[in-house]
Amino acid sequence: MDLTTPKNLKNPPYIQLAIDIPLISEVRKLFTQIAEISTSQLLIEIGTPFLKNEGLRSVVPFCRESFPNNYLIADLKTLDVGKLEVSLGSQTGVNACVVSGLAPIATINTFISECRHSNIDSWVDTLGISFNEFKAKLKLFKSFPDVLVIHRGIDEEISGKKFTWEIIKKYKNLVPSLIAVAGGITQNNIQEPLKNGSDIIIVGRAIYQAVDPFFQLNKFIDSLKVNP
Amino acid sequence: MDLTTPKNLKNPPYIQLAIDIPLISEVRKLFTQIAEISTSQLLIEIGTPFLKNEGLRSVVPFCRESFPNNYLIADLKTLDVGKLEVSLGSQTGVNACVVSGLAPIATINTFISECRHSNIDSWVDTLGISFNEFKAKLKLFKSFPDVLVIHRGIDEEISGKKFTWEIIKKYKNLVPSLIAVAGGITQNNIQEPLKNGSDIIIVGRAIYQAVDPFFQLNKFIDSLKVNP
Repeated sequence: MDLTTPKNLKNPPYIQLAIDIPLISEVRKLFTQIAEISTSQLLIEIGTPFLKNEGLRSVVPFCRESFPNNYLIADLKTLDVGKLEVSLGSQTGVNACVVSGLAPIATINTFISECRHSNIDSWVDTLGISFNEFKAKLKLFKSFPDVLVIHRGIDEEISGKKFTWEIIKKYKNLVPSLIAVAGGITQNNIQEPLKNGSDIIIVGRAIYQAVDPFFQLNKFIDSLKVNP
Repeated sequence: MDLTTPKNLKNPPYIQLAIDIPLISEVRKLFTQIAEISTSQLLIEIGTPFLKNEGLRSVVPFCRESFPNNYLIADLKTLDVGKLEVSLGSQTGVNACVVSGLAPIATINTFISECRHSNIDSWVDTLGISFNEFKAKLKLFKSFPDVLVIHRGIDEEISGKKFTWEIIKKYKNLVPSLIAVAGGITQNNIQEPLKNGSDIIIVGRAIYQAVDPFFQLNKFIDSLKVNP
């Protein structure tokens, strides 16, 4: 299987701010609060409800203007028409697009291939798939994605679905991709995914629902340094 | 399990025009061409790449203005945050929202429940799931969806994945929901899903990529009458 290397993520670990806020007007307020943070260790994720509500054509230029030098990810969670959806993301200037690992294999392979063709990174999200299901499906991949997201959904988290951080190591043994982890990460547990080898820590509500998002985001970025 | 009935689909079969065109400017041209068609047997689907590119807040009012009396579906293909995504659709005025059948069961149940709460129809899309997988998952559903979509993805279709129309009857025996069928339906094969009991025929490219979309769409609508 072909090996790929993320083109713009050479210095992990990173903090990824997932913006699952549906309105640009609300996101603008958040960006004003965190505007002074310019470290390249911060990745900005255009969350699925945000892009579905406001549209890639609006949100990508808006985010690029606010974060001209940061890595931007469009969390498309693509399930079909992989080539078309990648082209929508790459045309607007994101650095990476995300396909759902639940998508038909034809879609995943088209998606990864089109990302390479468009010179952006391909991310696969494991939301809703068990480790063993993913392991079996991986045999049908034509290339590895640049990044694999280990993801407990918000609805799953609320419903109390179990999750152990040790799973990160199992995925790292399976793929050469960088590993991102999402779902319920806070200041209290962030050292767990870092200790287990996560390259990218995805945090959303713990930052943007905080009383002081600037303070929280800085604290998360500082947490990266604690890890040996 | 609770039974629900679609509130606005009392006279099947229907033709559903799936708009998987990413740009509003292109869709506007299409709508101008088919504007004279006003039958309520026509449902308008806001396709996933269309809504991801332009945003629900723009595309729903635009489609509603062009089709004030037709049933409008937002094909969100939701995989997480079911409640939030339904609220984005219902706020903008669609008649139905679509959740991916691949989503975690917590998301599917939240999605269906929120649709009922918002007084819109809930649709579940089986793209990427086999009949047996769906049958097993259905045991965990708290309510039936109003409509179930039997769906061969465009990428799957191109890759030559096999599909038989007889599967429609198996689904009809499984759920009281209306059955919609999507994927590669043309004038040449439309009688197959109709004969097998499909309530909604979803057609996209066969109409909007035609030389004369008005003529083609009328032909599809006329095909509904051929069926006994």
